[in-house]
Parts: sequence; C-alpha cells; structure tokens
Amino acid sequence: MTKQSSLSPGSRLHDYTTQDGAAWRVSALKEVSYDVMVQPRLLDPANPALADALSSGTTPARRLIVIDATVRSLYGEQLAAYLAGHDVEFHLCVIDAHESAKVMETVFEVVDAMDAFGVPRRHAPVLAMGGGVLTDIVGLAASLYRRATPYVRIPTTLIGMIDAGIGAKTGVNFREHKNRLGTYHPSSLTLIDPGFLATLDARHLRNGLAEILKVALVKDAELFDLLEGHGASLVEQRMQPGEGGTGGAALTVLRRAVQGMLEELQPNLWEHQLRRLVDFGHSFSPSVEMAALPELLHGEAVCIDMALSSVLAHHRGLLTEAELGRVLDVMRLLHLPVLHPVCTPDLMRAALADTVKHRDGWQHMPLPRGIGDAVFVNDVTQREIEAALLTLAERDRVPRWRALHGAVDMGV
Amino acid sequence: MTKQSSLSPGSRLHDYTTQDGAAWRVSALKEVSYDVMVQPRLLDPANPALADALSSGTTPARRLIVIDATVRSLYGEQLAAYLAGHDVEFHLCVIDAHESAKVMETVFEVVDAMDAFGVPRRHAPVLAMGGGVLTDIVGLAASLYRRATPYVRIPTTLIGMIDAGIGAKTGVNFREHKNRLGTYHPSSLTLIDPGFLATLDARHLRNGLAEILKVALVKDAELFDLLEGHGASLVEQRMQPGEGGTGGAALTVLRRAVQGMLEELQPNLWEHQLRRLVDFGHSFSPSVEMAALPELLHGEAVCIDMALSSVLAHHRGLLTEAELGRVLDVMRLLHLPVLHPVCTPDLMRAALADTVKHRDGWQHMPLPRGIGDAVFVNDVTQREIEAALLTLAERDRVPRWRALHGAVDMGV
Repeated sequence: MTKQSSLSPGSRLHDYTTQDGAAWRVSALKEVSYDVMVQPRLLDPANPALADALSSGTTPARRLIVIDATVRSLYGEQLAAYLAGHDVEFHLCVIDAHESAKVMETVFEVVDAMDAFGVPRRHAPVLAMGGGVLTDIVGLAASLYRRATPYVRIPTTLIGMIDAGIGAKTGVNFREHKNRLGTYHPSSLTLIDPGFLATLDARHLRNGLAEILKVALVKDAELFDLLEGHGASLVEQRMQPGEGGTGGAALTVLRRAVQGMLEELQPNLWEHQLRRLVDFGHSFSPSVEMAALPELLHGEAVCIDMALSSVLAHHRGLLTEAELGRVLDVMRLLHLPVLHPVCTPDLMRAALADTVKHRDGWQHMPLPRGIGDAVFVNDVTQREIEAALLTLAERDRVPRWRALHGAVDMGV
Repeated sequence: MTKQSSLSPGSRLHDYTTQDGAAWRVSALKEVSYDVMVQPRLLDPANPALADALSSGTTPARRLIVIDATVRSLYGEQLAAYLAGHDVEFHLCVIDAHESAKVMETVFEVVDAMDAFGVPRRHAPVLAMGGGVLTDIVGLAASLYRRATPYVRIPTTLIGMIDAGIGAKTGVNFREHKNRLGTYHPSSLTLIDPGFLATLDARHLRNGLAEILKVALVKDAELFDLLEGHGASLVEQRMQPGEGGTGGAALTVLRRAVQGMLEELQPNLWEHQLRRLVDFGHSFSPSVEMAALPELLHGEAVCIDMALSSVLAHHRGLLTEAELGRVLDVMRLLHLPVLHPVCTPDLMRAALADTVKHRDGWQHMPLPRGIGDAVFVNDVTQREIEAALLTLAERDRVPRWRALHGAVDMGV
C-alpha cells in the first residue's frame, strides 16, 4: 500500500482500505476555460463588449476596477463615461504599477480594496486594467481572495496584450526572486484593444516586441520576417492602423503573437511539462532583471537572454553566422539591449542554477535551431556561457545601452 | 461574439476569429489526485511508509520539514532517528503554529526556508508536520512557491487528521477575516497516525471531535451514535487502542469521519458548488472565531455555530425537541461550548452577511433535518437568529464556558 499504487485516475473517491489500514485516493478533474478577444475601440460607447463582460444579467452591475495610475490619467474619464452610459456602478482602486511594486504588499492593497468594496465570491469579476505587472498583481489577489474570485483583464501595454495578460500565470517577486510567488488563475476574459498602444511610449512598445520576437524565433519564421521588415515602423506608428501605414502588419503581428503564445500555453496550462518553448529568453533573464532592477524592463532582460542564447546556439552550430546576424540586427532595429553590466559570469552562473531548480533539476534550455524552430538542451557549461558573453561584448562594442538610454551611465 | 458563446469545453485552443475580430477560447483539464492513508506507528523504524513518501528513487533524499514547535519537542528525536535510519537528509523549519500566527508573514517564513534550502520545483515534497494551522500555512506556501510545489502532510491533531489535513484548501487569515486568502492545493499524500493523539491535550482532542460531530449531524447518524456512546472515553483515552478501551470505536470514528469528509470534498474539490454540507457550523463561526481570537479553538467556534444552527432548525420544526436535546447533550458530553459572549446579535448579523458574500449572494445555510441529514435554507432572518440565541442562552444558563475554562473570566 504505497502512494505509487497505479489506480486509474478520473473523478472519484476510491477507498482502497486493506487489512493493513484505511486508505483513500481522491481524484478530480478541474475544467478551466477562458477567452481572449481582440476588440478595437473598447471604450467607444457604441461598443458593448466591455459592458457585456461586466454585466450580471438584469440588475445594474457594481464592479471594482483596479487600474494603473498612468492608464487612469490617460483613459479614466473615457472609462467613467463608458461605464456611466452602460449603467455600471464602479469603484476605482488605483495602483502605481511597476516592477518594484510587484510585491505582496501591493497584492494586499488590492485585497483591502476588494474587502472594502465587498466583492462577492463568483458573479462580480474585478476588472484589471493596466500593463503586465498590474494584471499579474490583480490576478494573484483575485486568485487568493476567498481562494479564487473571477476577474477580467484589459491589458494596456503590448507585453500585456501578447504575453502577461493572456496566460494563466499570476505572480509577484519575493525578496530578490522574480515571480517567486504566484498561482495559475487566468481571467475569464481578456479584451485586447490595440488602440491603447497609441499612448504607449516607444520603450514600452519595444518591450512588448521583445516577447513577440521570442515567439517568432522559436516557432514562427513568418512572424520574424514581419518584425524584420516592419519593426521600425511598428514602433514609430505604435502599431496603429492608418493610411499608408503598417496597420495591416501590426494587426497580423499581434494576432500571430497571441496565437503562437496560446498554442504553447493551452496544452500545458499548469506547466506539468517543464520543457517550454516560451521559456526561451527566460533562462538567465529573471536574475538579470532583478539584479538590474529597476533599470531593465522585462522584455529588455528577456532580449539580453535571447541574444546570449542565440550566440550559444551559434557556437553549437544550431544557428548560422547569417542567422545570428539577422537575429541581432532585429534586436538592434528594435533598439533592444543585448548586454548589460550586471551580466557577469557569476550572475549568469547563479541565474542558471536557480532556473535549474525551477525546471526541477534540468536546464531544459530552449535554443533556436535556425529561425522559427528550437531545441532543448541540458548540457550548457559555464565555459560556453562565458564564451557567449565575450562574443556578445565584441559584437556589441558600441555600448548601445548608453547610446539608447543616455541618461544612465552603465559604466561599459 | 460574446463570452457567453456556447462552445464545447474540453482541452483545446479554439480559434473563433470572425470578421469582427480575432478571438480564442483556451480550454484545459487539470487532473488532481491525492492519497490519504491511516498509518499507525509512522515513526517506527520498521515502518517504511514515511520513508517511501519522502524517497526520490535511488539517490538519498534531501527534504525540508516544516514542523510545529510542540510536535518537535515531543517527537523531534524520534523523527530524526527515523530519518537517519532511512538515509533521509533533512532540515527543520520550526513554526510555533496557532491561530494568531495563521497569517501571510508566517507563510513568508516558510518561503524563506524553502529558498534557503533550495527546494526544487517538483521532486522533493516539503513535509508539513503539525496541526491544521500548520498544514494550512505550509500548504499555502507550497502552493505559491514557484506557482506550486508538492508537499506531504502528517497531521498531528485530530482536527488535522479528519478535516484540515485531508482536503484541498490552504489558507491564512487576513486582517480580521478568517481564511480570507488561500488556494486549493492538496498535499500529494496525507499520512494519519492516530498514535500522535496520545500526547494531544483533551481540549484539542475535543476540538477535533467537534468537526467529527459536524459530519455526523449532517450525514452519518451511526457516527453520531458512536459519539453519543463513547464520546467521554474517546477523550479520556485519547482515541488510543488498548485493552478494554474504546480503541475499536476510536478507529471506526476516525475512519467514518475521514470517509464522510472525503465523500463531500471529492466531487466539489474547487467548491464550484457553494451548497456544501460540510459548511454546517461554518456560517457564523468564522466571525465568531476571529472576534474571540485567541480564545476559541476552531472546533469550539464551529460547535457554537452548530448549536445555534440546531436551535434554528428546531424552531423551524426540522429537529424535534428530543433530537435537539441529544445534539446539545453530546456537545455537553464533549465539553464543547455552545455560546460565547462575542455572539451578540450584531456580530451574528455581520457574520452571516460576510458568509453570504462568500456563498456568492446566498445563505446556502445547512440545517440539520433530524440527525444524520440536512437541508439548505436561504431565508434565515435576523429575528430567527436572535430567538435562537435566546433559546441557547436559556438552555445554557450555567455558563459552561467559565466552568470549563475557569482561567478565563468571560464576563457572562
């Protein structure tokens, strides 16, 4: 009578009491389902999508809205007018969301707001409106509150629209560790309105393009081609439609990025499989991002990791010189960093060691094989990492970081 | 294109893009399975059960053990000898677990211990050894750590063995709210060794018997008969086997209580159904327990709620005078309180209002219908509650609380 007993799973209570003692196996299936929709003009009073998402049938809805401070200053009036027009009573909880605020204390702020508002258990989803940091925080609060309350996400940044705001993960940083505490609790619905990108600054747009580049590199060569061909104008035009612009390309990029991400997440929503293509760029970056905090945005840290991993792949013959050149050129085109002074050999060693714990004792490191494909490796050595760092430093002799973010002296 | 679209569930990514826009539905099934075993003599070196539970195949196991301070002082040496004999390297994280320590700060202590120990993601379950408060705290830490790491529970109190330690719920109190924050994350295995009850004080044993009485009242008349017939000696003999004792009854009581609880939990592991028989005694008690903190143990607060609910049921004709008498007599036999000075009409009103939020706008209050059966009601009035309080006070004219816990002057 051991726990390795090979009883069939399914949903039931199995009493396998023997003369040795009483014993039971509890088996159950949890069905999770959520929607992701691209919905332009979300705050247009004529668009019922948001009102539908918040409605509770016949009675006027009463909703708590957790909103990023910047988003509120930009869209607060429009949102209030929309909700008034659709008979939704609401209370705003304003959070100044940024990576350094991605901690439990901010989750508690949201919980306090939920308590003060009197959020019921199931029928009144909290609305989270902001970037990926905000939706991660609200997602964790909703997940913990009464052991799970529903929420709806409106990501307002590109990284939120194609990454943080469409998966199941919630989380906050703890001590020096990136996303060390969290849950799997997707919002019932994510509404993506690319119109919000019109007011996003270029750096945050590029931050999102880094995660799109990730999806492109490991599984979508056509998406890579689109970034290579339109990267600069996508940033310049903030992925907005418009005459003679790259609106068509922008929408295609957005759609392919979401599609690619969801294809990877859906069969592995709870990460039972730790070999994840979408972990490309996330082997070293959690430690790099935390070490550089608050200097690097998430996508920037991911890009540094992708650059390093691409050089590693090149050194192993998985990526040709020409392919590596194209990869680094797109990063350059998108003004994304490929190195940062915190990336010392020691930090990279510690970063990988922690990632190995996170992947249950394995590196499971995705490396690009050509463009649009990837393999997993488990035998990357410290020597290879240091060689890759050297190669990157040589190729990146002009300290682009300083050139791009001139205000910060990186000491390169 | 609304989120109410009736697409079939199942596990897949459905692309339901139309000319109105891109849209996806992510559907996935999570399979959860866990074991509960009664395993006497768990720390006997000849019993391989615990070693098996902690083993990781061929290599010597290395495990973090979170243990209650009292349990460590009583069983620490025996545990260390057992683990040494089975080649398990371990580190102890000692927590002085009690209701007032059931807060996020204590979860963080466990998380810090997990970080310091370097717990990997999947293959090295943390062992939680202590009462229900301890296993709830460790369960939440394990649930949040890297978004879910496995753990094993060894409940050492009766309430842990038949309630807190065998379900899926984890949680901590937040501000003045009982279990306001938590998750569903059962341990892979719970090992129940009734031998630990030999060192449990009478009050904590009765605390567990209160939750057993709950199961008896709503669904198991035979279990009620056992408590009625053997209640006093179960306490006196600490549910231990022994010549001429009630060992046989003790084991039957334990087994029926676990069986009854698991029967209720298994089909509703994530509480999608908010009409729960096991919520009997949990409509008013969360607020009562928190208001009286640290004076009432969980089972004591539950018993007060059960007494009130039983009187309510009697006033509605669901319980005869004789049945109510039997119920209150068993509570008296078990030296459990049926009232407490914090139970003012105002507190009870607020308690029920919060429970209604927790049950998504409904009372869904289980009331006993005879002994061993229950119904759900949604129309309990404040007037009925006050009438029930009065009846209880009259029937409980001797302030039993003061008589039993003489050290505390309740001002009754």
